[in-house]
Amino acid sequence: MPKVRLIAKTEFVEPDWQTDAEGGEALVEFAGRACYQSWDKPNPRTATNATYLRHLIEVGHLSAFEHGSATLYLTELPRGLTHELVRHRHFSYSQLNQRTDPTDVVEPELIRQHPELHAKFVAATEASLAAYQELVDSLEQTVTGRRARQIARSVLPNATGTTIVVTGNYRSWRHFVAIRATEHVDVELRELAVACLRELQKAAPNAFADFVISTHPDGTEVASSPLVTEG
Amino acid sequence: MPKVRLIAKTEFVEPDWQTDAEGGEALVEFAGRACYQSWDKPNPRTATNATYLRHLIEVGHLSAFEHGSATLYLTELPRGLTHELVRHRHFSYSQLNQRTDPTDVVEPELIRQHPELHAKFVAATEASLAAYQELVDSLEQTVTGRRARQIARSVLPNATGTTIVVTGNYRSWRHFVAIRATEHVDVELRELAVACLRELQKAAPNAFADFVISTHPDGTEVASSPLVTEG
Amino acid sequence: MPKVRLIAKTEFVEPDWQTDAEGGEALVEFAGRACYQSWDKPNPRTATNATYLRHLIEVGHLSAFEHGSATLYLTELPRGLTHELVRHRHFSYSQLNQRTDPTDVVEPELIRQHPELHAKFVAATEASLAAYQELVDSLEQTVTGRRARQIARSVLPNATGTTIVVTGNYRSWRHFVAIRATEHVDVELRELAVACLRELQKAAPNAFADFVISTHPDGTEVASSPLVTEG
Amino acid sequence: MPKVRLIAKTEFVEPDWQTDAEGGEALVEFAGRACYQSWDKPNPRTATNATYLRHLIEVGHLSAFEHGSATLYLTELPRGLTHELVRHRHFSYSQLNQRTDPTDVVEPELIRQHPELHAKFVAATEASLAAYQELVDSLEQTVTGRRARQIARSVLPNATGTTIVVTGNYRSWRHFVAIRATEHVDVELRELAVACLRELQKAAPNAFADFVISTHPDGTEVASSPLVTEG
Repeated sequence: MPKVRLIAKTEFVEPDWQTDAEGGEALVEFAGRACYQSWDKPNPRTATNATYLRHLIEVGHLSAFEHGSATLYLTELPRGLTHELVRHRHFSYSQLNQRTDPTDVVEPELIRQHPELHAKFVAATEASLAAYQELVDSLEQTVTGRRARQIARSVLPNATGTTIVVTGNYRSWRHFVAIRATEHVDVELRELAVACLRELQKAAPNAFADFVISTHPDGTEVASSPLVTEG
Repeated sequence: MPKVRLIAKTEFVEPDWQTDAEGGEALVEFAGRACYQSWDKPNPRTATNATYLRHLIEVGHLSAFEHGSATLYLTELPRGLTHELVRHRHFSYSQLNQRTDPTDVVEPELIRQHPELHAKFVAATEASLAAYQELVDSLEQTVTGRRARQIARSVLPNATGTTIVVTGNYRSWRHFVAIRATEHVDVELRELAVACLRELQKAAPNAFADFVISTHPDGTEVASSPLVTEG
Repeated sequence: MPKVRLIAKTEFVEPDWQTDAEGGEALVEFAGRACYQSWDKPNPRTATNATYLRHLIEVGHLSAFEHGSATLYLTELPRGLTHELVRHRHFSYSQLNQRTDPTDVVEPELIRQHPELHAKFVAATEASLAAYQELVDSLEQTVTGRRARQIARSVLPNATGTTIVVTGNYRSWRHFVAIRATEHVDVELRELAVACLRELQKAAPNAFADFVISTHPDGTEVASSPLVTEG
Repeated sequence: MPKVRLIAKTEFVEPDWQTDAEGGEALVEFAGRACYQSWDKPNPRTATNATYLRHLIEVGHLSAFEHGSATLYLTELPRGLTHELVRHRHFSYSQLNQRTDPTDVVEPELIRQHPELHAKFVAATEASLAAYQELVDSLEQTVTGRRARQIARSVLPNATGTTIVVTGNYRSWRHFVAIRATEHVDVELRELAVACLRELQKAAPNAFADFVISTHPDGTEVASSPLVTEG
């Protein structure tokens, strides 16, 4: 399982207006109210940050959620998974350089649980890393170390571990969770989406309050929101 | 002149690594170092946050600057100016609803300085606002208030005041300043870009340190960076 | 009413594979089939371009619709309307320069139908244009013509006519129609979205076949698709 | 070497205006002229499509280049390369599904040229594919075929072949070539960028005329333009 850790979030620094939440949640409310200059919270049904943000989601005013952002640091991911992750255009990424020597592989859970599969996996990935090292050593006799590693990594497996810093605004994160935490998505990516959601709900609870994590009949976790139709 | 105020910025909350800066500046450095796992600052020439960020700019590693963000609240802008501003795709916006009754107009500086031009401007914009109000009053007899305001605003002038919340990451803000604070840009938009830069340099000095504000021979302000070629 | 004209579209030039459609529609199918190398149309239920594209929409595989694009040339729009249009980030725009002298204003339909409102509208906009011209003439004595027009346009009304070239891929156009052709949207923007849909359905019928245009009880037109939930 | 083939491009279908070029090149000129309504080509120095487009590039009016687009079909790429390619946000992609059984691997040129390295590469990748197949066979006894392939691919190497449809507008393609065809970029990605440029120059010569392909002292190819500073 990838490790997911919140490393940055939005700080709201406007002294002249406040609500019953802080950070990006307060900022989303501020932005929504700026559109109507409704600073005095005229509507009692949306007078708290939680109810205001829920209302924005219900009426589809999602652009306000673009103002808050959160940065997660993902480690112990297989590179095969980041290939799918980086297709999400609305995030910003800083990934471990591909020419860095590999140190570890990330074993799929279902393989790890079966001794026979585990043995096959270990043998195959160890052989790949050994071949990588042999190729680097040979290539370094004719090209630079950087070039040697760049060529040799052609034999590295998808399981090769990587790390990546991912920044997204709340709207992008909500979209990512909505389409990647459903049962239709491969388990690895879905588990990542659910793990991200857990961190996001700690960082900005009201902005992700409608998403509920549950256990699928097959034992894996999924997440969904009754207010999101795009999934 | 529009008023520009910083209302939100990035907070860095990772406890296990630190540098000689905070917030988004620390996050940009963290993201850059994550690509090479160079946490121990091996290179003395980039051992401070200021020198590290400058180095990232020099080598064109600008994607790291996407992790930090800043939100500015712009008030007393003419709507003619936001029409140009919102063309910048990489920002997120929350603007005063267009069907809100107009309260004020924003007079161009050069007009305000000339009594004769000022008189013409005031007469023209007051006439437009009066026509707007008459149209609203008439239209409300047959359509809803919202619809009446939406139609009647066709006579409102570009000078009509508006407010807008703008969030962008450092890379987007740097690009905006680079292409909008130059002498080739209309004064109103350029003044706005320079005013934004001032707030950004307060919020994240190292991320915008290379931009210098100077006075153009015609008395207006411009900003530029020796490290930016895109302007 | 703005005039909307298709001026460019996607041409499919791959000689080695064909289907029962051309241009961008064939390209979308090609892109979808490339993901599974299903060139021989193994599934009879999706063996035609129309059924294949409908299937892609039904299963949410919308990224394939990003490959086809269409360019519309919109003329006789009020500038107040393009201010809202250009908020759509996924389109590309080339708009009439704002410092071009205004030639015409675009009168809202509901105003034109009422002689009294029409008279007010004409008087107000003619006065604005006259003030613009007076300001330009005065300003040109101290600044360049470009600068004079840039400042003077602060008194021009939202109804000032403009033209704009808009390019978007099918996915962006579908999204635009989905959220702008509904009854909840102001009539002018909705009419524009419906007029765009008409041109798009001519250019790439299978890519927009699920959208149906109908007449709202109030006499205006709306469009929607049973397959689109985002509206 | 990946194979690169143009499969779609922009068709200009406006009957009422023409220039000495067609397709996307004509469209870019149309869009540029729409901004100033300069249909009659008043400036003799920009009276041809080639000189007009060059002028747009020189003055940085690159948004006009967003209207023309080209779609390339890339085959025989290693998946390690598409991981880097898909980081380019402004393209649209349709890639061979990752759960399709692998059929081939793509061998780096420098490895293929050395019999000893070639032997190592073949042995390593054949072992990986064999391990993949064994894992699939075992996993299929407990999970679906799709799930089995999804898990088993963790042992597949970066060299695993893939195919991808890439659509981009001229501005995005120009940016891609500008930053990926330089000597600072890994050879595989650079070769891909140069091969794309060759197809683009056939599809829309005037839009890419300033890029020149040359041979680097080390024997590899690079491309650059004197008008592009962002590289």
